Amino acid sequence: MANCERIRVGILGFGTVGEGTYRMICDNEEEIVQKVGCPIEVRRIGIRDPKKERSLPGEFFTTDLEDIVSDPEIDVVIEVIGGEEPALSLIDLALDKGKHVVTANKELIAKHGSRLVTKARKLGLDLHFEAAVGGGIPIVQPLKHQLAGNDIVKMMGVLNGTSNFILTKMWDEEQTFDEALAGAQKAGYAEADPTNDVDGFDTMYKIAILAAIAFGKQIPLDLIHREGIRKVTQKDMHYAEVLGYRIKLLGIVEETGADDEILIRVHPTLVPEDHQVAKVEDAYNALWLHGDFVGDLMFSGKGAGSFPTASAVVGDLIDVGRNMMIGGSGSAIPYGEGMKCRPIGKLETRYYMRLVVADKPNTLGRIATVFGEAGVGLAAMEMRTLENDLGEIVFLTHKCVESSFTSSLEDVRLLDVVESVESWFRVED
Amino acid sequence: MANCERIRVGILGFGTVGEGTYRMICDNEEEIVQKVGCPIEVRRIGIRDPKKERSLPGEFFTTDLEDIVSDPEIDVVIEVIGGEEPALSLIDLALDKGKHVVTANKELIAKHGSRLVTKARKLGLDLHFEAAVGGGIPIVQPLKHQLAGNDIVKMMGVLNGTSNFILTKMWDEEQTFDEALAGAQKAGYAEADPTNDVDGFDTMYKIAILAAIAFGKQIPLDLIHREGIRKVTQKDMHYAEVLGYRIKLLGIVEETGADDEILIRVHPTLVPEDHQVAKVEDAYNALWLHGDFVGDLMFSGKGAGSFPTASAVVGDLIDVGRNMMIGGSGSAIPYGEGMKCRPIGKLETRYYMRLVVADKPNTLGRIATVFGEAGVGLAAMEMRTLENDLGEIVFLTHKCVESSFTSSLEDVRLLDVVESVESWFRVED
Repeated sequence: MANCERIRVGILGFGTVGEGTYRMICDNEEEIVQKVGCPIEVRRIGIRDPKKERSLPGEFFTTDLEDIVSDPEIDVVIEVIGGEEPALSLIDLALDKGKHVVTANKELIAKHGSRLVTKARKLGLDLHFEAAVGGGIPIVQPLKHQLAGNDIVKMMGVLNGTSNFILTKMWDEEQTFDEALAGAQKAGYAEADPTNDVDGFDTMYKIAILAAIAFGKQIPLDLIHREGIRKVTQKDMHYAEVLGYRIKLLGIVEETGADDEILIRVHPTLVPEDHQVAKVEDAYNALWLHGDFVGDLMFSGKGAGSFPTASAVVGDLIDVGRNMMIGGSGSAIPYGEGMKCRPIGKLETRYYMRLVVADKPNTLGRIATVFGEAGVGLAAMEMRTLENDLGEIVFLTHKCVESSFTSSLEDVRLLDVVESVESWFRVED
Repeated sequence: MANCERIRVGILGFGTVGEGTYRMICDNEEEIVQKVGCPIEVRRIGIRDPKKERSLPGEFFTTDLEDIVSDPEIDVVIEVIGGEEPALSLIDLALDKGKHVVTANKELIAKHGSRLVTKARKLGLDLHFEAAVGGGIPIVQPLKHQLAGNDIVKMMGVLNGTSNFILTKMWDEEQTFDEALAGAQKAGYAEADPTNDVDGFDTMYKIAILAAIAFGKQIPLDLIHREGIRKVTQKDMHYAEVLGYRIKLLGIVEETGADDEILIRVHPTLVPEDHQVAKVEDAYNALWLHGDFVGDLMFSGKGAGSFPTASAVVGDLIDVGRNMMIGGSGSAIPYGEGMKCRPIGKLETRYYMRLVVADKPNTLGRIATVFGEAGVGLAAMEMRTLENDLGEIVFLTHKCVESSFTSSLEDVRLLDVVESVESWFRVED
């Protein structure tokens, strides 16, 4: 199937990533030829809106995307439409028609990766998705290859640039969440509907993909505990700082010790200020991991945007091209389905909480007694006087089981000296 | 050639890396089988000293290393002896005998990589060397694959764990170089003869390998400017801190803009304290790079030691195994020879220098005039009074050409008001 004189490519989608990919293939032609052994030629580009002005001549474009994936003159299909449909049907059809596939689609791979990779492997085709996680940062393939001999014990990632940009602005410029979100939207980092980013869906897809590769089985998305950053306040950031922490939206996955069982979660997290993950700023992404032999590793870089994402797409494309040249295609590494996930209630970690309380004798004693009787040890405390005979108390607990913590927090909430539980977050040490 | 029931391995060398590799293959058998599709079996291990006590039964071992690389029952040879000979002859013989090779040998690859990789490719064999740079941190393969579409503009690496450990101790615990070196030797980080580490040879081999991959041609080692850390003092670290910098031993390579020309160097460097590279501590390694599409990237982790290096060796071995299973071996990416290197005298950067001077009127004026007339602009200064009518001056220059800087520094050295030029270092901003 390989045309040995050139690798012929069809691109589905010509948004920022599609256009960046096209530009990179043109701009760095020399590097690419040297590495693949022959040129890569973009033959056709599939778009949705034929009326939109484009930077290329019209003959490249078609709105008939099925025609691209069926074209016998195309060897590799690059899918950068995003979302579940029509991307999934198009990728299925491309594989059926004998084409290698490179995709940047995290939602698709998080939901259907196992089936698609297994199908590609059976057909002797490549299916790569480095761009689905961490933009241009090489994460997916290193996990599949250079780190493949390790038992991965834990991974923690700042995987959503938009949320990290918002949290950085809240931190650096003392903005509220709403102000920072509006700024991110203005700067082009956040969509008009920011749900996918700020409510943790994007991070969930990405950590699910990484976990599937590291642990060898697709992760059922409904078993991933997911919280976004809407509830993070200036005040919590301030107390976190006093206690020596930063607040980051993390995707976290770890082995539980039981066979084929992990605990996987997405939530705002207090991270010690000297941990590498705490220092990831603005729209940067990072993945920290611990493997049994490799120890601690950290990868960081620009996790999104036209050019960094194109870098990953073109890296995959070069690998597909090389495999075509040496006849070694079908290098996708299949993984199964049905990973077991431990419920979040069984998590053991430390907790941060902020309470508004009545500023009167024995308030602290009564609260501390409830926690103490539930076996939840308190490790650090900050206390401030508010107006109207109220006070504010922040606690950091010792390590405890989440269900014990949340039930004792419910008991505390019911005390007459407690006005409200303003917030609580998990802590990583 | 592939034995589809198991991949049969011979290990040359059973020092810390060889033993770590053997242990990882045994300990993580399950992960490896899942990823390769069949088991990996260590058949024989080549050693130099048959009398040394070993943790394995004697039947594994032989002192006849040629016999291992000629053994028809071995598919893959792992070379972890280190040094040029006999490693080079053994690898050549292994390839001649049709065996895939995984090596952790930086000196060998820095000197002979181009020829060996080209030979392996012609013979349809794999030759991988992820472990040669950065221990377990995936750097080599990501440069070859995921980043292959980028024009790499610059790379800077903390690539020698021993030197970084010594510099960290000097910084954190106010030790002298000699004290910190003795501590590193006691902790097992430094050899009795520390030349390879502290004089920059190890860093030179590693940055040469990375440059060869990124720029597609082997780097003549004699064209790499190399300085070690013996001349770094507590005092320079202190002044660097006052000016907002840390001192790190870096391997640096950058494009000059001319075709097939780079500038490549190894030396102690002042790095801004908020740069990611400045924060790499102890025996950790890191590589920072800038690619035209991917932007800034950083990889960090444990760059040496038995287990992290084994992680990289086994990652390569798994890739070889997979390629054998799908018949796609020979995936080594050849690179040519004869990269041009711009002489260090043509470098344009900023400079730090520390002078001991006569503490009398117009000393500063005369020094500043010499620099000024040579076109070397001064950007920052610190001045202290010493005993015996002497003073100490530290300057940070603006960007200038190194040959102008060094010749004007020679002129300054000859001034009668200048007692001595105590030190000077290059600065990265």
